[in-house]
Amino acid sequence: MIISILAHRNATQRSFIRAVYAANYNKDLLNELDKELSGDFERAVMLWTLEPTERDAYLAKESTKIFTKNNWVLVEIACTRPSLEFFKAKQAYQARYKTSLEEDVAYHTSGDIRKLLVPLVSTFRYDGNADEVNVKLARSEAKILHKKITDKAYTDEDLIRILTTRSKAQIGATLNHFKDNFGSSINKYLKEDSEDEYVQLLKTAIKCLTYPEKYFEKVLRRAINKVGTDEWALTRVVTTRAEVDMERIKEEYLRRNSVPLDRAIANDTSGDYKDMLLALLGHDHA
Amino acid sequence: MIISILAHRNATQRSFIRAVYAANYNKDLLNELDKELSGDFERAVMLWTLEPTERDAYLAKESTKIFTKNNWVLVEIACTRPSLEFFKAKQAYQARYKTSLEEDVAYHTSGDIRKLLVPLVSTFRYDGNADEVNVKLARSEAKILHKKITDKAYTDEDLIRILTTRSKAQIGATLNHFKDNFGSSINKYLKEDSEDEYVQLLKTAIKCLTYPEKYFEKVLRRAINKVGTDEWALTRVVTTRAEVDMERIKEEYLRRNSVPLDRAIANDTSGDYKDMLLALLGHDHA
Repeated sequence: MIISILAHRNATQRSFIRAVYAANYNKDLLNELDKELSGDFERAVMLWTLEPTERDAYLAKESTKIFTKNNWVLVEIACTRPSLEFFKAKQAYQARYKTSLEEDVAYHTSGDIRKLLVPLVSTFRYDGNADEVNVKLARSEAKILHKKITDKAYTDEDLIRILTTRSKAQIGATLNHFKDNFGSSINKYLKEDSEDEYVQLLKTAIKCLTYPEKYFEKVLRRAINKVGTDEWALTRVVTTRAEVDMERIKEEYLRRNSVPLDRAIANDTSGDYKDMLLALLGHDHA
Repeated sequence: MIISILAHRNATQRSFIRAVYAANYNKDLLNELDKELSGDFERAVMLWTLEPTERDAYLAKESTKIFTKNNWVLVEIACTRPSLEFFKAKQAYQARYKTSLEEDVAYHTSGDIRKLLVPLVSTFRYDGNADEVNVKLARSEAKILHKKITDKAYTDEDLIRILTTRSKAQIGATLNHFKDNFGSSINKYLKEDSEDEYVQLLKTAIKCLTYPEKYFEKVLRRAINKVGTDEWALTRVVTTRAEVDMERIKEEYLRRNSVPLDRAIANDTSGDYKDMLLALLGHDHA
């Protein structure tokens, strides 16, 4: 019943359902669902029912509380959302937690990770398009990146500056010049040092900024292939991307795994949780 | 005529006048004023007529183009505006210049100045109030600041983190603990190294965050006392603060100089420019 109602409503409709529920019963629908449901199913329903910016604020908070590996989620949110949407998530974060995302991230990290992560979550990037790319700048900054990376100066200030402040369109152009002039992609160059945690973070940021659907495909692939399944990641990606770019992610998934995403998820999950995810993938057109 | 009309209209009314002018004559009032007026008077009319967020975007751009000393204006804008207002100025900056403030500042600065300035313009600070201050945190961060400053580690990451990410209320509490526990204010501690450009920037940021009216009083005092008068600074402070905290700034000015601000300005300027500034100070209630 919950699946058949909530899973087929878009963000505006879900927000309206919550408002009507609150007005009629004087209770927050989310709290009521929390009492009734449990486990992975509850998390999926809860994340789906939250408004997108509230949901990002919630996921970001989770990610600032658990450091290291889970900072990847912060990178995901900071680098895959359009600028204004990310800004609204930061406003929702402040409204809910009474602190800024920036101060929490800066406080809970240190060293090289902090040097990269804090500007990533701080900058209000320009949402430029391909027409606004500065080609001369792309060429000169591609050279800077190549020099720093061949010197293994991965934490260099200019390298961080370029990746954390330029628009996605500009970074895309810079990395295309990189590939054209230096033979392979920047992430290929970074591959040899890929055991290093900082380099992993750097690669993740680059991937989220330039090929978000490939990034999400990989998160799903790892979550599904993991012994026992990583429901935490699976739920996050399905609920946050269902209304954004899930069709593109499904294409990537099929291409990379030769199995449709919905079948892979169906094989790996069960019960209400499985039904919810499949409904969100648009499989179950009830 | 221009003074009597524009100087007595608030931001909403001025914006309306511009819109009506554009609708009736199919021309931008600002361009027409630009053709008719010149010099300091033109700059005063132009800055005053711009909407506050557009004006901040314009001043910030001016400041990113001229480095070193003029970066102080960037600090002034980043640290004295309420968070959301500063964010709107960043949006206006993007709309007008097709780049982000963050990328321009990061690109045009380097070294220690960049280390402090980029996070100052990037962070979306929490606009917390005194009730939301974390006293325990204020105490521990006051200790960190004291240790770093007595070690002369002015560019230390944690020192920069605290000043660039905490809310103004939290920083205020931290610096009060500093003063209570270590005998004098943080800016007193910084005084002995005040020839250093970075330390000056640091002191300016602290002053803007904690005592904006004292900061503006000092800018006005220096502008007026300078041989030949610094009209550039004088115009900026009068046009940007007239509708915000000019009464407080006047009080500070009188207290510090034993001369009312309007008299000091009247003695130091002339003609239309003088009339415009005095009208904005609310002296000339026509």
